[in-house]
Amino acid sequence: MAGNSFGKLFNLTTYGESHGPALGGVIDGCPPGIELDLEAIQEELDRRKPGQSAIVTQRKEPDTVKFHSGIFEGKTTGTPIGFVIENTNQKSHDYTHIKDSYRPSHADYTYDVKYGFRDYRGGGRSSARETACRVVAGAVAKQMLSGVEIIAYVSGVGNMKLDKPYNKLDLTKVESNIVRCPDQEIASKMETYIKEVRGKGDTVGGIVSCVIKNVPAGLGEPVFDKLHAELGKAMLSINAVKGFEYGSGFHGSTMYGSDHNDAFNTDGSTKTNYSGGIQGGISNGMDIYFNVAFKPVATLIQEYETIDKEGKVVQMHGKGRHDPCVVPRAVPIVEAMAALVIADFYLINKIY
Amino acid sequence: MAGNSFGKLFNLTTYGESHGPALGGVIDGCPPGIELDLEAIQEELDRRKPGQSAIVTQRKEPDTVKFHSGIFEGKTTGTPIGFVIENTNQKSHDYTHIKDSYRPSHADYTYDVKYGFRDYRGGGRSSARETACRVVAGAVAKQMLSGVEIIAYVSGVGNMKLDKPYNKLDLTKVESNIVRCPDQEIASKMETYIKEVRGKGDTVGGIVSCVIKNVPAGLGEPVFDKLHAELGKAMLSINAVKGFEYGSGFHGSTMYGSDHNDAFNTDGSTKTNYSGGIQGGISNGMDIYFNVAFKPVATLIQEYETIDKEGKVVQMHGKGRHDPCVVPRAVPIVEAMAALVIADFYLINKIY
Amino acid sequence: MAGNSFGKLFNLTTYGESHGPALGGVIDGCPPGIELDLEAIQEELDRRKPGQSAIVTQRKEPDTVKFHSGIFEGKTTGTPIGFVIENTNQKSHDYTHIKDSYRPSHADYTYDVKYGFRDYRGGGRSSARETACRVVAGAVAKQMLSGVEIIAYVSGVGNMKLDKPYNKLDLTKVESNIVRCPDQEIASKMETYIKEVRGKGDTVGGIVSCVIKNVPAGLGEPVFDKLHAELGKAMLSINAVKGFEYGSGFHGSTMYGSDHNDAFNTDGSTKTNYSGGIQGGISNGMDIYFNVAFKPVATLIQEYETIDKEGKVVQMHGKGRHDPCVVPRAVPIVEAMAALVIADFYLINKIY
Amino acid sequence: MAGNSFGKLFNLTTYGESHGPALGGVIDGCPPGIELDLEAIQEELDRRKPGQSAIVTQRKEPDTVKFHSGIFEGKTTGTPIGFVIENTNQKSHDYTHIKDSYRPSHADYTYDVKYGFRDYRGGGRSSARETACRVVAGAVAKQMLSGVEIIAYVSGVGNMKLDKPYNKLDLTKVESNIVRCPDQEIASKMETYIKEVRGKGDTVGGIVSCVIKNVPAGLGEPVFDKLHAELGKAMLSINAVKGFEYGSGFHGSTMYGSDHNDAFNTDGSTKTNYSGGIQGGISNGMDIYFNVAFKPVATLIQEYETIDKEGKVVQMHGKGRHDPCVVPRAVPIVEAMAALVIADFYLINKIY
Repeated sequence: MAGNSFGKLFNLTTYGESHGPALGGVIDGCPPGIELDLEAIQEELDRRKPGQSAIVTQRKEPDTVKFHSGIFEGKTTGTPIGFVIENTNQKSHDYTHIKDSYRPSHADYTYDVKYGFRDYRGGGRSSARETACRVVAGAVAKQMLSGVEIIAYVSGVGNMKLDKPYNKLDLTKVESNIVRCPDQEIASKMETYIKEVRGKGDTVGGIVSCVIKNVPAGLGEPVFDKLHAELGKAMLSINAVKGFEYGSGFHGSTMYGSDHNDAFNTDGSTKTNYSGGIQGGISNGMDIYFNVAFKPVATLIQEYETIDKEGKVVQMHGKGRHDPCVVPRAVPIVEAMAALVIADFYLINKIY
Repeated sequence: MAGNSFGKLFNLTTYGESHGPALGGVIDGCPPGIELDLEAIQEELDRRKPGQSAIVTQRKEPDTVKFHSGIFEGKTTGTPIGFVIENTNQKSHDYTHIKDSYRPSHADYTYDVKYGFRDYRGGGRSSARETACRVVAGAVAKQMLSGVEIIAYVSGVGNMKLDKPYNKLDLTKVESNIVRCPDQEIASKMETYIKEVRGKGDTVGGIVSCVIKNVPAGLGEPVFDKLHAELGKAMLSINAVKGFEYGSGFHGSTMYGSDHNDAFNTDGSTKTNYSGGIQGGISNGMDIYFNVAFKPVATLIQEYETIDKEGKVVQMHGKGRHDPCVVPRAVPIVEAMAALVIADFYLINKIY
Repeated sequence: MAGNSFGKLFNLTTYGESHGPALGGVIDGCPPGIELDLEAIQEELDRRKPGQSAIVTQRKEPDTVKFHSGIFEGKTTGTPIGFVIENTNQKSHDYTHIKDSYRPSHADYTYDVKYGFRDYRGGGRSSARETACRVVAGAVAKQMLSGVEIIAYVSGVGNMKLDKPYNKLDLTKVESNIVRCPDQEIASKMETYIKEVRGKGDTVGGIVSCVIKNVPAGLGEPVFDKLHAELGKAMLSINAVKGFEYGSGFHGSTMYGSDHNDAFNTDGSTKTNYSGGIQGGISNGMDIYFNVAFKPVATLIQEYETIDKEGKVVQMHGKGRHDPCVVPRAVPIVEAMAALVIADFYLINKIY
Repeated sequence: MAGNSFGKLFNLTTYGESHGPALGGVIDGCPPGIELDLEAIQEELDRRKPGQSAIVTQRKEPDTVKFHSGIFEGKTTGTPIGFVIENTNQKSHDYTHIKDSYRPSHADYTYDVKYGFRDYRGGGRSSARETACRVVAGAVAKQMLSGVEIIAYVSGVGNMKLDKPYNKLDLTKVESNIVRCPDQEIASKMETYIKEVRGKGDTVGGIVSCVIKNVPAGLGEPVFDKLHAELGKAMLSINAVKGFEYGSGFHGSTMYGSDHNDAFNTDGSTKTNYSGGIQGGISNGMDIYFNVAFKPVATLIQEYETIDKEGKVVQMHGKGRHDPCVVPRAVPIVEAMAALVIADFYLINKIY
C-alpha cells in the first residue's frame, strides 16, 4: 500500500536508503524447484553497479547480494526469498550541506512535504540506489522465465538517436560497448558525447528500448491490468522516467486504422506488429517492444541557486560523483522490471 | 487479481460486456458524508456516450446509471456504492459473422487464446463500452476531490496537432465543440478531417492531453507506486492507448539537466515545470500535465481479409457503426481515470 | 481495503443495504469454461432466504438473483460475473423509531461513530441481508469445485448439543428438517425450543459445524494465510459469529502431544485426525472440520431501555419480524464462505 | 499472495527458515516521525526467545534484531523498515534423519506435497521460529499505538485453568513468573506440571488470553474485514493455534439474547461487555478480549513410528530440544499479532 511492493503473484518488496547500512528485499511467490544460478544474478547486478565504466557515476560499491532464505540445495523452495545488499560506502560524504536545502528537481522538497522530514544522505530512499534490489528480483524472474528473452538497449542519448527498429539490429552487441547501444558506430558517438556532458558537470537524457521475445500468447488481465499497462507502470516507476510507449506508440496516434491493423497469417501470427505483441491488453505471441524516456538526472556538478527549508535563497555547489547520462545503467533495470511483469502474468495465467 | 479492480483505498470493481444485459460496478472506500450530485454524474456519462455527435459511433444507448447502495439521504454512507447501466441496445445486431473469425488488431484472437472462448457480441468484455463504469466512478471521485480541477482535451488527430502548451489555451472552451479541442480553429479542421476519415470507413488515431490543477503536494507512494506510474497505468488501461508521457515527456529525454531542472521560487513553487508537478514520484503542488496517445481503432467499415478459428482465410466486411476517431469520447475517460488515481492517493495520504 | 471484498484469486466484492433498492456483487477471477447451473445457485439462495420456515424471520423476499455478465452460452467466460438481488420489501416498515437511538448489541452505535451517520433502515449495511450475496458467490465456487463436498449443519442451539462427531452422523439428513440438524430426534427438540424462544420474543445462540471432504492436499499459504486462518476469518466475518475452532479445537488445548499427534498410514493418510485436515496451514487430504459459534442475535420483540444519539435514555419496543435462532439460516452461509476459501486456495495452488 | 505478508496499510512481509542464515522482514506503511525505542523492541524479542527459562526449548539463540532502513535520527521516516535476525545456531544439529521421513502432525508431509521438496532442517519455514519477525513488527506497532494497552497471558495449560475473567486479575503480574500466568498460585502449579510433561518428553496444549484496552471506537471494516475477523485470522496464523473466540465466545452460543445484549450507559459505554468491545465488526471503545487455543506441539522426545517418503514404516526418535508447552512463549506473539491488527485498522480509519 505504501508503495514498496511490486507484483501480485510474483511479488517483490524492497527496502533501503542510499546511505543506510543495507538495502534488501523479499521475493514472495517464486515457485519451488527452480535451480537458481546465483552467479548470473550477481552478474546482472554488476551490469547496474556504479563505477563500472568511465561514463557512469564513480561511487564505489561492490553491490554483493546475499541470500537469506527460500533457496535450499540450489533450488527455490517456494518460501520467500530474502536478500540483502550492504552499503559499504555509506559514510564517505558529508551531506550536511543538503540537510536543510532543497535541490531543484530532486525529491528533497516532496519528501519533506510528505513525510515531515527525510534521510537526506545521498537522497535517502529516493535515490536510484534502490533499483539494485529490482535487478536482483528481476534476475530471479528471468531464470523462472527460461525461454523468454528480454533485451533492453540504449536507443537515444540527448538528440542522438538509433533510428532503426529493434529487428534491424544485432542485439547480441548490446554489451559490447559501455553505452549499451547495439550499433557500434552510434555507440561511439554517444560515448564521446556523454563524456563531453560529464566534462561540463551537466547531464543529458536518453531512451532505453526493450524487446521481449517468446512470450506465450495469453498473458495480461483486462480490463485494468492490461499487460502494457503494467509494463508502463513498471517502467514509469524507475527513477527519472518521463514516458512510455509500446508498439506503434506515439507515432501510432498519427496513423490510419487501415494501415495500423495487423493482418493475420494463417498460423495466428501477424504480418505487421504495430500492436507491439499485445491486443486487448493480452499478449498475442508476437514480439513485445517498447520505449522508455529518461530525463537528464538532476544532480549536476555545477553552481546553482536554490532555497532552504525556510524559503531563503542559498547558493549550492553540486560536488562529488554524478551520472552524466543514466541510460547505460538503466538498461538492466528496464530488463528487470520487464521480467517482473512477465513473471507475474505468467503465474496468474496458470489459473486459466 | 483478474484485473477488474482499480485503486487501493478508493477502489472500483467493474463488470459487464458490450452486449450483455447490463454493465455495473462497485466503488468501495469512498468516504462517508459526501453530498453526491447525481445529475453531474449522469452528465459525465453523457459526455462519453455513443451517438452524442456526428463524429462518434452512432450506437444508440441512453447510458442511464442507477445507484443501488452506499448513498442515503443524498450523501455517501462509507459503505460500497453499487451501480448499474443497462444495455438497451444489445440485440440489434447479428454477430454470427465474427463468431468464428478473428478481426485484425482486435482482442478476438487473444481472448480466445486466453479464455478458450469468448462472448463475441460487440467485442464482449474487450469493448470500450466498459469504460462507462469508469466514468461513473471517476465522477464520484471528482466530487470527493472538490477544489482539484481535472481537464482533458484533444490535442492531436492524426497529424493535426494543437502545438501550444496547456497554459496557453483557454481550457473553458473544451466543450464548445464536438472534437473537444480548446482551439476553435484547429477543432474545426479536425472535425472536417474526422468526417473525411469516417466517409472512407477508416479510422485515425489521436492525442488526449490532460492537466490537473490544485493537487496538494505530497501525493504518490514511492518507490513502485509513484504518482506518475499509477497515472501511466491508468491511462494505458484505457482501450486503444499506446503511450503516456508527463511533464517534459519524451522531449525531456533530449534535454540537458541544466535546462531541465526546475528552479525554486521562495514559496516552494518552481519557475519552470518540466517535472510536470511530480518529483520523486510525489506531487509538488505544481500543475500535473500529461499526454496520452491513442491508436486508430481497429473497427473499419471496409472489406478485409482475415482468418477464422481454424486458420482459414476468410473475407470480412466491417459493417454498422464505427468510431472514426476515438479521442473526443476519450476525453471524459481520461479525466475519470485521472480522478480515480488522485482520489486514491488523496486517501492514502491521510495516513501521513 | 474498505472491507467489502473477499478472496485473492477467486474474488468477491459485494454491496447493498437491507432496505436499499438492491444488493449485488462481482465475482472476479472465476476461471472460464465452467458450466453454471443457475437453478442450483438459486436453490442455495432459497436455503438462506427469510420466510422459509416457521422458525426463521418472516420477512418476505423472493431473493431472486439476476446475472449481468461473465456468463455466455451457459458457461463462465473468465470475465467478471456481476449479479443483483433486488429488495422487494424495502418500504414495508417505518424505521424512524430507530433513526436516532442505538439498539443494544447492534451496530447502530459503532456505525455512527465510524461513519458519522448511517442508513438506519433495517440495519443498513450491517444487516445479515448482505450474506445473500455471499451465498450466490459461494454457489458459483461450489460448482467450480466439483468433487469437493462442503456440508454444514446445526450442532447446537442454546445448551442443546449434538454431541456426536460428524463422521457418526448421516449428513444426507441435514435438509430433512427445518433446523438443519442431521439427528432427527435432537432436531425436533431444537425446533420446539426455538419456537418457545420465539414465543417469548427472545433469541438464542447456537453452533454450526462444517465438514469439507475431498480437498486435495496442498491448499493453504503459510505463514500468514494458513488454510485454517482464512477459514477462521471467513467464518468470523459472518454476522453474529463469536468463535471458530477446527480439528481438535479448544479441546485440543487440554491434550498431550502423545495423544494428539496423528500417526500416518502408509498411504499418507492419518489414523486419527485431530489436525482437522490441516497441518502447517496446508491441507493434508483428510477431512477438514470446524465449529462456528453464533451469539443470540440482538433483535428482540421485547420492551427495553436504551440511549439516543444525545445520550438520553429512551424506551424502545422491538417489533415486527425477528430471527429467534440464526443458525438454521446460517448453514448455507457457512458453506458458502467455506467454498469461497477453498476456491481461492485451489486457484492459488495452480502456481505450484 | 503467497502468504508471507500481513496487514494492508501497516504491512509486514517476512522471510526465513529455522536453520537458514537469517530471518528478516520489511514493515511497509509505518507512518513517519515515530520515535522508536529500539531497546524496547529487543526486549519484546527476548520475551519470545528460546532458552529464556526452564520450561521452554533450550535452543541457544541471541535473537538480536538489526535494522537496515526506515529509521533516521531515531525516528521512523515513512519509508520501509527492513530488519534481520541472524540464526547463530543453524548448524548444531544433524537433520538427515528427518530428511526423508514425515513426522506426525508436523508440516513435513504437507510441505512436500505442496512444494515438491522442503528445507527439512528444523522444520524450515514451518518452524515457529518465523514468529520472531512478527514480534519485531508487533513491537514497532505497539510504539505507534501509544496509549493502547495489549496484554496477553496464559490462562490454561492442559486441564489446568485460570477461570477468572481478565478484569478480576492483576495483569501487572504477567511477567512475574515464567509461565506468564498472572495468578501466582496457579502459575506455580502450571510450572510444576509443565516440568513433569517435559520430563516425559511429552507436550501439552494451553490457552492464551488477551485483552486490548483503550482502543478508540470505530476500528474495523465491515463486512468481510471485521475487526474480530482479522484478529481471528491473525491468531489462527500463529503456529499450533486451533481456535479463537472473543467476547462471550463459544459460551455466548448457549445464551439468550435478553441476557447477552449489552445495555448502554448514557456515555455510550455498556453495562456488560459480552460483545467483547466489537459490534458489527467495529470497535465500540470497550475492552476487546479474546482466547486463543494452542494444541500440544508435535515434537516429542519419545520413540515413535512413522512413514518415509516412499510410504515405508520407519522408527524415529525425537531428540534434542523441545518446547513442552508452547503458551508461555506464545504470549508475546499473541500481543504482537494483536498490535499488527490494531495498527492496521488504526491507519485505515484515518480515511474516515
